[in-house]
Formats: sequence, C-alpha cells, structure tokens
Amino acid sequence: MANNSPGYAITLRVELSPESSSTASLAQAVIDTGAALTALDVVESSHERMVVDVTCDTSDPDHADRVTAAIAGIAGANVRKVSDRTFLLHLGGKLEVKPKVPLRTRDDLSRAYTPGVARICMAIYEEPSDARRLTIKRNTVAVVTDGSAVLGLGNIGPAAALPVMEGKAALFKQFADVDAWPVCLDTQDVDEIVRTVQILAPVYGGINLEDISAPRCFEIEARLRELLDIPVFHDDQHGTAIVVLAALTNALKIVKKNPADLKIVMSGAGAAGTAVAQLLYEAGMKNITAYDTEGAIYKDRPNSESTSEWMMANTNKAGVTGKLGDGLAGADVFIGVSAPNILTEADVASMAKHAKIVATGRSDYPNQINNVLAFPGIFRGLLDAASSKITTETLLAAAHAIAGCVSPEQLNASYIVPSVFDPKVAKSVAKAVEDVARKA
Amino acid sequence: MANNSPGYAITLRVELSPESSSTASLAQAVIDTGAALTALDVVESSHERMVVDVTCDTSDPDHADRVTAAIAGIAGANVRKVSDRTFLLHLGGKLEVKPKVPLRTRDDLSRAYTPGVARICMAIYEEPSDARRLTIKRNTVAVVTDGSAVLGLGNIGPAAALPVMEGKAALFKQFADVDAWPVCLDTQDVDEIVRTVQILAPVYGGINLEDISAPRCFEIEARLRELLDIPVFHDDQHGTAIVVLAALTNALKIVKKNPADLKIVMSGAGAAGTAVAQLLYEAGMKNITAYDTEGAIYKDRPNSESTSEWMMANTNKAGVTGKLGDGLAGADVFIGVSAPNILTEADVASMAKHAKIVATGRSDYPNQINNVLAFPGIFRGLLDAASSKITTETLLAAAHAIAGCVSPEQLNASYIVPSVFDPKVAKSVAKAVEDVARKA
Repeated sequence: MANNSPGYAITLRVELSPESSSTASLAQAVIDTGAALTALDVVESSHERMVVDVTCDTSDPDHADRVTAAIAGIAGANVRKVSDRTFLLHLGGKLEVKPKVPLRTRDDLSRAYTPGVARICMAIYEEPSDARRLTIKRNTVAVVTDGSAVLGLGNIGPAAALPVMEGKAALFKQFADVDAWPVCLDTQDVDEIVRTVQILAPVYGGINLEDISAPRCFEIEARLRELLDIPVFHDDQHGTAIVVLAALTNALKIVKKNPADLKIVMSGAGAAGTAVAQLLYEAGMKNITAYDTEGAIYKDRPNSESTSEWMMANTNKAGVTGKLGDGLAGADVFIGVSAPNILTEADVASMAKHAKIVATGRSDYPNQINNVLAFPGIFRGLLDAASSKITTETLLAAAHAIAGCVSPEQLNASYIVPSVFDPKVAKSVAKAVEDVARKA
Repeated sequence: MANNSPGYAITLRVELSPESSSTASLAQAVIDTGAALTALDVVESSHERMVVDVTCDTSDPDHADRVTAAIAGIAGANVRKVSDRTFLLHLGGKLEVKPKVPLRTRDDLSRAYTPGVARICMAIYEEPSDARRLTIKRNTVAVVTDGSAVLGLGNIGPAAALPVMEGKAALFKQFADVDAWPVCLDTQDVDEIVRTVQILAPVYGGINLEDISAPRCFEIEARLRELLDIPVFHDDQHGTAIVVLAALTNALKIVKKNPADLKIVMSGAGAAGTAVAQLLYEAGMKNITAYDTEGAIYKDRPNSESTSEWMMANTNKAGVTGKLGDGLAGADVFIGVSAPNILTEADVASMAKHAKIVATGRSDYPNQINNVLAFPGIFRGLLDAASSKITTETLLAAAHAIAGCVSPEQLNASYIVPSVFDPKVAKSVAKAVEDVARKA
C-alpha cells in the first residue's frame, strides 16, 4: 500500500458531463491508484455539466501524476487544473514580522520611535544587560544554516534551505512562543560562518544551528559556544539525542532493563549519531558500538576523517570490527541515524529477545521521534532564564521532561514518546531547562 | 513653554488622604511644572484614602523628576510608583515573528514542515528565482546598522541601536505591510559589514541601511549595490533627500519660483546632506552651497577628509568661502541637516524675501519632514516589482509621489508635506516606485 502523506496532497478541479460520468467514478479512480481521497466538493452543477474539486493525499509527485492521468482517462471527465496543496501553502512564505505596539497616532510614534526611543537606546548603552529587558533579544532565536545538509536532500545551499528554516521558526512560535528568525548564510566556510554569527549575535537570545553538515557542524558549534554569551544548540545533534534518550528511557521502563546493562548498536556516526552516542553515554549507557560506511568504528581505525575523536575513544570498548549485520547479534537496542533500509529481517531477528519496541521519525507509525518535542521548550527555558550556555545537564533534563510527559497509565510499546501536539511537552521541557539554567 | 512630548510621558500612582488633599491639587501641581496633563484616573476610593493614576507628557527626564517632586510635596499625597510610559511600551521589545500558516494538526505539519517542505526546497534548488514565490524573500527587508551614528546619539553600538531598528521594522509593517527584520552588526569594519550583509542576503528582498556614520556609509552602500541582486537603500541619505525634495517641490508651487533659479544653502555635508544635495541637483537645482564645521565647501578645499568628492566637484560653482551666516544672504532656501541652533534671527532675516516657509523634523511644528513618508512605500514598490536595484529615477519618482499627495486645495505654507498617517502616501509612493522599477 502506498505511503500517502498530506505533504503530497493535490486538488484536481474536474469538469464532468453528467450524462457520461459521476462523482463516484472520480472517487473510484483515486482509490484505484492507491491514493487517499480526503475531500470531494461539487463546485458547480447544472444539466450540462458539473465542476468537482477532488482532493487526495498521494505518496510522491509520480503518484500525483498517476492520479491525474486516471481521472483524465474517465469518459466525459476533463481535468481543468491540478493544485499542489503544499505549494499553495508556501506562496509568499510562512512567516511575518508584526509590531507588538500600537502605531496609529503621533503619540504612539513618539514613544515607539523618535524622540522617545532615544531614551531606551541610552538606557541600553549605559547598562548593556537591559537589552534583554527592553528589546526583542529577550525572546528571539536565530535559526542558522548554510544549506549544506538540508533534511535528506544534501547540500542544496542557503536559498533552497529557507523553507525549512521558515518552518522551524514557525514551530518555535507555535509550540513555545519563541520569536525565531531564519538566517541562511551564503557561505560554507567555517571561519566565515563563525564570524558572521558572532557579528549578528546582538539581536538574539540564542542560536539554533540547523542542517549544517558533519564534521563542520562540530567545530562551528564549539567555537560559537566559546565566543558567545548566548546559548548555541545544533538541533540535528542535540535535539535528536534528547528525543532518542527520552524514548529509550520510557522503553526501558516497559522491558524492565537497566541503562548500564544495555548493548546498543548504532548505524550512523554523523552529527546526529555522535550526539546521540554522547548523550546516552552521559545517561549511563556506556556499551555503544557505532557503524558507518566503513563498518564498525573502533579506536585508531584508519579512514576515519569524518568520525569524531570522541566516538573513537568512547564507543566500542571491546574493539569489535566488521559489518553492522554481524554486530547486531544479541543487541538490546538498535539506533538508525544514517540511510534508510539498512537492516534485514534476519538482522532484527538476531537481536536480544526483549528488543520489541519500534520508534521512528515517520508520522505514520507509532512512537514518532520528532525534534519538535525538544527544541521549542528548550529555547523557551533558556530564554526565560536569560541563560548564556547549554550544558549536558540541560540536555538530560530536557530528555527526562519529555519522557515524564507519558504517564505510567499511558505507557506502552506503541506510546513511549508523547504526541508533538501535547501542550504539556513544551511547558514541561521549558520548566526543566529553566531550572537547570538558573542553577548554572 | 516646555516642549512636552508623549515620548517623555510618565504615569504616577498617588495615594491621597481625602481629608487633606484632592485630585484638583494633583492636576494643579502637574500644570504648575509646565507638564501636559493627559489623564487622571481614580483607581480606588474609600473614606480613608484615594488612589489616583496621573499621566502627563513632560519635556525630558529632569522635567519628569520635577513633576514627581511637586506631587510628592502636596500635603497628604504619597507617590507610590512612577511609571515611564515609553519604557513600559518597550518591555520585551516591539516585534514578534508569527506563522502565516496553520500548524495545529499532523497534516498541517506535513505540509509546512517535513516531508512536504522538501519539495519546496527542491523547486527552489532547481529554479532559484522561485525563492521570491515560495519564501519570505518576496516581502522581507533587512534593517541593517552597525550602531555608529544612531539618531543624534552618536556611536552607541549595535545593542543600543536595536530599539531604533525594531521601531523602523514596526513602521515598515504598519505603513506598507513589509516584513522587516533588525540586523545589528557587532562590527564597524567596512569590509566586514559588506561581507556580512552579502552572506545574509539570501533571505531578503531588499536592504535598508540605517544609522551608519559618514563617510563609511557611502562606501558600504556603493559596494553592496555592486555585489547584490537586491536593492540597497541607505535611509538616512536617500529617505531624507526624498522628503526634502518633496517638501521643496510643493514649497516652490506656493512661492512660484523655478527650481533652476533657486539659491540653496545647506548646513551639513554628512550622509543626509550629501544625498539631499545630489537629489536636488538631479531635480534641476544646481545652485547649492554647503557648509560644514570648516565653513563653505569648495573645490580642492583642504581639511575635507569627510566630504565626498561629489560635493567638492558639483556644489558651490562660484567658489564662495567663509562662514554659513555670510553665505546665507540672499538665499532662497536653507536646509539644515547638521547640529541644531546654527542660525541666528539675523541670518534668517538676510535671506531672500520669499523665503517664508518652514519645515522641520519635529512633530510639534507644521510640515514635518519625516522619512516614514518615504521608506515604507519605496520598499513596497521595489518588492512588488521584484526589483534588483534603486536608481535616481526611483528617488525622484518617490519624491514626486509624496508631493502629489498634497492636493492644490490643501497646499499652503503650513501644509507642504502630507501627514505620515495619510494612508494614500505609502500606496502612492509604492505605485510610482514599482512603475519605475518595472521599466528599469
């Protein structure tokens, strides 16, 4: 069965001759292609003709073309127009910048702009920490990318990355009332990226790095953390790590295993893989073996330019070599943060018996591992605490808070992470992060 | 009489003993200091006490202190709290970033974020010009400063400049539905500013430079115009020049003089002065003499590091030397874009007889020369035309459009520029600029 998604929804406007065809024939044509019919609206109806809008979710653009062809092939049906609902939604972009203050009279202008604003400027000039009180800095995060590793699309550059950064900024506002702004940098030079973010920093209370390729992302994050007095967080690394740890924490409650006893095997040792391994390690899960395209990662392995030193030094203490399939035998946990379709059924069958819980990034399976569980609440908490840095304690607290949003009554193998739409999540993460940040 | 402004409004919460004092005594105390009482609200009233909020406009913070002292001096009155209304308005900043698309369901997320957004990214990757159709670039302007020349406050740096940039961005949205974002750069190196703006440019459809000191602003603007495929506009220069030309155009209709016949004297040859001189020159007013702290500017004058070559070459063809006061004799027009209080009454009396119209940047006099008449409509027009550059024709068209918003019936010596709240202005400027941009 096709994996239909509203991300690939189309609406066809179809003209029908009532004598030779019917709306039922439209519905049947959609269903026969495997698409999911979601709406059928008669727009116009007369003796001579009917105009019908047919909306359905498809699995990809080819599938959408097959739906269009199937409907066009119905006798008496004429496809007038095909609208891609995802493209329609994106017309003109997804964000706007709005004033929070009235600007309707001369008095309003005198306060929000000249001459009144001059006193606010001087207050900040005399006491720089007042910027957090009297400007947007208090609630503003930069979503920074160089477009080098966008979703699974690769190095598509800053302009093509903008729709993702807009989406991220929209999620920040929707889930945690954080004002986030897309910063898409037209350079992929590490020194330039670091310097540019440093130059931009006065407006922001935090930096969310996004979709920057490994291993460059490690150096960029480390250098910015050193240079800036606001927190710097690479979501592809730490957001993923937090949600994986949250899911694993709850999964362990079901299978009744201790973190220290787990044998963990990972596929992928890029940005996400490295951060996941580091956070699990900090949470007491020390037996981790990671695999990349060269096989198992072990100490002093040759051909490991893209592997972090931390991975070489801290994972795979047994010094296992060889392929992922072999390493999986007897494993309690498999974590895939690389390419899809990397495991066979036999590989999974070779794992330890209690390995029975599945969580993925997909929204059409249970237990969706989605970073949106983490990043809005994390920055909400950091901004509320006027925090200057993120620590391992911050990450652990966030994971613990997410796991805690699933009550003992709710917890089962199909529900180890809360829904992204559970309003408790961001609040709970924010509170936990703020508490840690205030103690730091 | 004091020059009271809502920019210096305060609200005092006062507790009164009804036996010994009254609200009338509060009002009288405010009036006696020269402040303007704007509200008096009884918050609480009982036999034992009254609580009253007294709001008034003052002329400066010292004046606000005198009002507070006067009320505290009333027998039976106790000032509980003094709130500065301008500071209250600025708490938390003046802008927010809001999603324009729904994000309430999993289907919404699938379209606005993953997986749907990937197709939007790839569409832009394959056809870069689609960024203007499918992202915020279509409607977004960066308000860029380095904080080197903020209002009349001087070099106060990027953090202290942020309240002005937020105000500017708010005005962009309010007056022309342009989404503008503050970019406060923590560098004052010309090369770094140019490179940083170039690196940031993918997100924006235009760059508004703001409060950057002369002569650095000339080089920054010129280099960015060369490097970028979006329009670059230094508002302190061109916004000011446009509004001055608009005012002068209408003033000439009243005094019935031709542009070519005017003798124009200017004080100031910085960012604004240079741009004003250039635009008036392009509009046919060639007889301009400018004065700076060294006196009249003339060709090959020594000590002219901060004076542009254009000023030296194109103004003061007669080669006048000496002080401003002397040069003003017989002038038709005086334009002051330097320090205040530079002219004596005798200076003004020495001007030509028809020099009788006064326009200033102050909101408490008629004919306010305010850049907000120009910049919102200019960028609205440039964005609507997907323009890549600003030309002299753009500036002249904008000035003409502003002047045209004052009808022949409205025109008089106290009304040569329209109100900043006249909704016609931004629309008219936008239309004129868009027409020029589409022809370019």
